[in-house]
Amino acid sequence: MTVRVAVVGATGAVGRQMVRTLEQRSFPVRELIAYASGRSAGVRLQFGGDDVEVRDVEGADWEGVDLALFSAGASVSRELAPKAAGSGGIVIDNSSAFRMAPDVPLVVPEINPEALRRHRGIVANPNCTAIVALMAVAPLHWAAGVTSLVVSSYQSVSGAGQKGVRELLEQVEKLRGEEEALSRPDPGALPSGEVFGRTIAYNVIPRGGTFEQDGWTTEERKLVDEARKILDLPELPIAATVVRVPVIAGHAVSAYMEFGREFTPDEAREALASFPGVRVMDDPSEDVFPTPLDAAGRDEVLVGRIRPAGANGLFVFAVGDNLRKGAALNAVQIAELLFSS
Amino acid sequence: MTVRVAVVGATGAVGRQMVRTLEQRSFPVRELIAYASGRSAGVRLQFGGDDVEVRDVEGADWEGVDLALFSAGASVSRELAPKAAGSGGIVIDNSSAFRMAPDVPLVVPEINPEALRRHRGIVANPNCTAIVALMAVAPLHWAAGVTSLVVSSYQSVSGAGQKGVRELLEQVEKLRGEEEALSRPDPGALPSGEVFGRTIAYNVIPRGGTFEQDGWTTEERKLVDEARKILDLPELPIAATVVRVPVIAGHAVSAYMEFGREFTPDEAREALASFPGVRVMDDPSEDVFPTPLDAAGRDEVLVGRIRPAGANGLFVFAVGDNLRKGAALNAVQIAELLFSS
Repeated sequence: MTVRVAVVGATGAVGRQMVRTLEQRSFPVRELIAYASGRSAGVRLQFGGDDVEVRDVEGADWEGVDLALFSAGASVSRELAPKAAGSGGIVIDNSSAFRMAPDVPLVVPEINPEALRRHRGIVANPNCTAIVALMAVAPLHWAAGVTSLVVSSYQSVSGAGQKGVRELLEQVEKLRGEEEALSRPDPGALPSGEVFGRTIAYNVIPRGGTFEQDGWTTEERKLVDEARKILDLPELPIAATVVRVPVIAGHAVSAYMEFGREFTPDEAREALASFPGVRVMDDPSEDVFPTPLDAAGRDEVLVGRIRPAGANGLFVFAVGDNLRKGAALNAVQIAELLFSS
Repeated sequence: MTVRVAVVGATGAVGRQMVRTLEQRSFPVRELIAYASGRSAGVRLQFGGDDVEVRDVEGADWEGVDLALFSAGASVSRELAPKAAGSGGIVIDNSSAFRMAPDVPLVVPEINPEALRRHRGIVANPNCTAIVALMAVAPLHWAAGVTSLVVSSYQSVSGAGQKGVRELLEQVEKLRGEEEALSRPDPGALPSGEVFGRTIAYNVIPRGGTFEQDGWTTEERKLVDEARKILDLPELPIAATVVRVPVIAGHAVSAYMEFGREFTPDEAREALASFPGVRVMDDPSEDVFPTPLDAAGRDEVLVGRIRPAGANGLFVFAVGDNLRKGAALNAVQIAELLFSS
């Protein structure tokens, strides 16, 4: 069969990558319909040698759309995804709008493809950092039973979209020639911006999303809630701190896990190496370990720094391209599962 | 009394800060002798209105030196610190050479000043990240008894000295105008350098120092060993991952701790707020939390993001200036304790 596909938010960082990924993986697209906000209507995208004009999503017609990939933010998804699904298509939604809804599967295809069977028209694509972390955690959990997880993240600015990249680069440019003064900065002279609300150039910002009552951020809450749902471990103790770093692409996590039994680094490497979508990059004797720049532009999640720590504990460092496996690729992989056969 | 002070490694990032800190804190210096390698001999430093010529440490005369602040690397310390101490002076050594020696006190003045009583001529200044982390951990431990600690760090390039700062800035300059290509980098075209051995611009590097047999890095080992020694908790389970980030100044740690009892964030804030040298910067409702740029150029360690997680667990995010409290300031504070009265 061939598929009539709509991409909603097609001009955003993730939307563009969705279009590219559909093309690169030869997804059987009969027709591609690109939607965005009115502001971006009229923009032209390349797809399969064709020139596709982006249309205003306000006037979207869902009739005959088999698959709608949404990446235009939670409020757009909340409004329009039910309409698209109501017209008989399947929605794969990259926003947080439906991820925790009990009747919406939240899927990483390598981890819980079976959850797709229960879908009722909408499937949720997990948070980018959750995907990267879980690609490392899930195979280890299956091998030895994870009993707790502590995660600190190193998240790139493209996780906040193209405007996040622009904000970093504008700040770097503003500070050019004055960088050494940052060892004793004048707070009043530091550049800031709308996206991160702080200087992100030459800095790290331990806040993702907004703060909740208990001091957790929305991004930290997503990581915990989504990990528990995807692993089907609703009680798993997870502690998470989400930190934005001045990196263009590639989200990293430093993850400490404890297991139900002694679990050696060699066993862990074996479990990870045989897991699809993961590449083990871990050879201290040869100075081999993954960094965000190793993962940027690649499909695999890279895992290294696998080390014993504490009682039945392991530390790992995992890195994935937040726009690919962390978003667009994972969504297209879900589509492949739904439309194969 | 007034003190004849030698600073060894006086032209390095920490050495220069030591000289500045002695001046700023009005340490009772009778004479300042500045030593460095032959390469830097002849350089002139300002101290207390005087022009001090840096001398070659090879020809150092330790006779009559009351206090020698060493920050010229472990091998220089191993060779010369015993000579300086043997001539009757006291050495405060910022290298890792003597930190774990049983007869050498390893001191953070706010935490374990009593350890100074046992010195035999050499006192060790702890690792920069260990100091920042422990300024947050120690008061919490005293309040509620820490039972385990998981740390991931965000360490600035000035932790590797001025050459680390230069390497970052050279790479940023090389990549100027090409930054967006970093979302799909050509690995062969990425700048690298001697200090970090990887691209540090727009990247993070999960390696500090060199790798040991078990996959831990030397910097991670220091953090664990020194924390146990300073807290006098030789068996404390500590897991650590050390990561270099493209920040000029200010080391941050994301620290997850479990305690022997339930311990609320409010209790934790109170314990931290009453601890000298710490400033609590933690008000989610007002979007207040610390970043490296808040700590750069300041003496206090800033602590925020204090949140409950897991059973009897708390997460905190602490940031300190690695050249000040992480190095020079801590050393001068030790000197103040030794030479007061």
